[in-house]
Amino acid sequence: MTYCVGLTLNRGIVFMSDTRTNAGVDNFSTTRKMFTFCEPGERLITIMTAGNLATTQTVISLLEERSKASDERDPTILQAPSMFQVARLVGSTLKEVIKDSSASGQTMDASFQATLIVGGQVKGGPPRLFLIYPEGNFIEATADTPFFQIGETKYGKPILVRTYDPEMEFSEAVKLLLVSFDSTVKANLSVGLPFDLQLYEADSFAKGRELRIEMDDPRYQAISNGWGDALRGAFDMLPSYDV
Amino acid sequence: MTYCVGLTLNRGIVFMSDTRTNAGVDNFSTTRKMFTFCEPGERLITIMTAGNLATTQTVISLLEERSKASDERDPTILQAPSMFQVARLVGSTLKEVIKDSSASGQTMDASFQATLIVGGQVKGGPPRLFLIYPEGNFIEATADTPFFQIGETKYGKPILVRTYDPEMEFSEAVKLLLVSFDSTVKANLSVGLPFDLQLYEADSFAKGRELRIEMDDPRYQAISNGWGDALRGAFDMLPSYDV
Repeated sequence: MTYCVGLTLNRGIVFMSDTRTNAGVDNFSTTRKMFTFCEPGERLITIMTAGNLATTQTVISLLEERSKASDERDPTILQAPSMFQVARLVGSTLKEVIKDSSASGQTMDASFQATLIVGGQVKGGPPRLFLIYPEGNFIEATADTPFFQIGETKYGKPILVRTYDPEMEFSEAVKLLLVSFDSTVKANLSVGLPFDLQLYEADSFAKGRELRIEMDDPRYQAISNGWGDALRGAFDMLPSYDV
Repeated sequence: MTYCVGLTLNRGIVFMSDTRTNAGVDNFSTTRKMFTFCEPGERLITIMTAGNLATTQTVISLLEERSKASDERDPTILQAPSMFQVARLVGSTLKEVIKDSSASGQTMDASFQATLIVGGQVKGGPPRLFLIYPEGNFIEATADTPFFQIGETKYGKPILVRTYDPEMEFSEAVKLLLVSFDSTVKANLSVGLPFDLQLYEADSFAKGRELRIEMDDPRYQAISNGWGDALRGAFDMLPSYDV
């Protein structure tokens, strides 16, 4: 599995992804699931991937190759006029790759599937965040649904639901994501460190701060260990339930 | 779906189950998923169910009918000499019901499946807790794996993993379960109130305190609302992560 979250804030978008990939428990490795396409001053697009690794790597390679071969008929994601059109292009590429795999003799089943988060900003529009389904269609984040998770989403959802605030500073949002990721890692072997982090500042049209957070990062350790203690402290403060 | 947890403590076992059952989102109702068989002074057995409702209701009805018809050749769960033998009986009954459904003309698929938690104590042995799979086999709770969850297990797992302590008082354990259930209810529509709660005190060989916790229960509300505030307080106490 995988765990990726894209979180919209008033000041921009935060992207975080884990790096564990596995085919069975005896075949696992570290792979990057966050990819950025940038035309400085004009657009920034970040894509995070969950699902079949062959599918997601092919999608990213196709998007990259096509954005370099600019003489093709169709616009590439570096030329599309809006984030909505970027999402459509990414969605149709994903659909095409899944269809190609299933047409090659093997029956289509869940194993070729992938789900993507696409976020960023194209000059002339606001920052936008999309969740793209294996069918190529997609939904957009709104004030009511301000974040998207893909992969192993359930363990880390309660803390996001209860603590998210669109006014958050980036440093608070990163802390929130680290708590959510840490809860997931503690409960599920298929999600693992290091985590990739990227911040996009609204209207910067440039790649924001980027970081790989390793297991021995002392600030991550402080949050991970502190969260266990803080949770127990919070729990102790609640009234007990005598039966 | 469903959410049930059986939690072993030094002082006994706590059982909690939700009551929502649904077939699609427009067909949902409230049904009890916790069933108790008791021979006062000699044994107490509590079963919680998740999965296909036709399967689980048939399993419980068969166990009940057979425990009344004591002239049958095989021992019933009210006669089995140990909790291990009780678990075997429940497992074989579950397997039989699933097999009957699938043999009746329709292809066997996941839709007849069910998973059970069986816990209690038979005189001469300690309190024991089992998780029974649709195949009829089962695993037992140990000091390393002191609780079992069935149904929609992921949302409520992180708080259990981080806060459980075998020395807990019953009132603390109930609080812990309510936080775990509340996190699940807030994140997933297929789990709903009221919750059924039962305490089994080790070596009591009797039905312990039992309660149905309704949505408007003021103590549940205090824990549910308090937990949101306590979480945010705990979160604020953590160091933020400047990037």
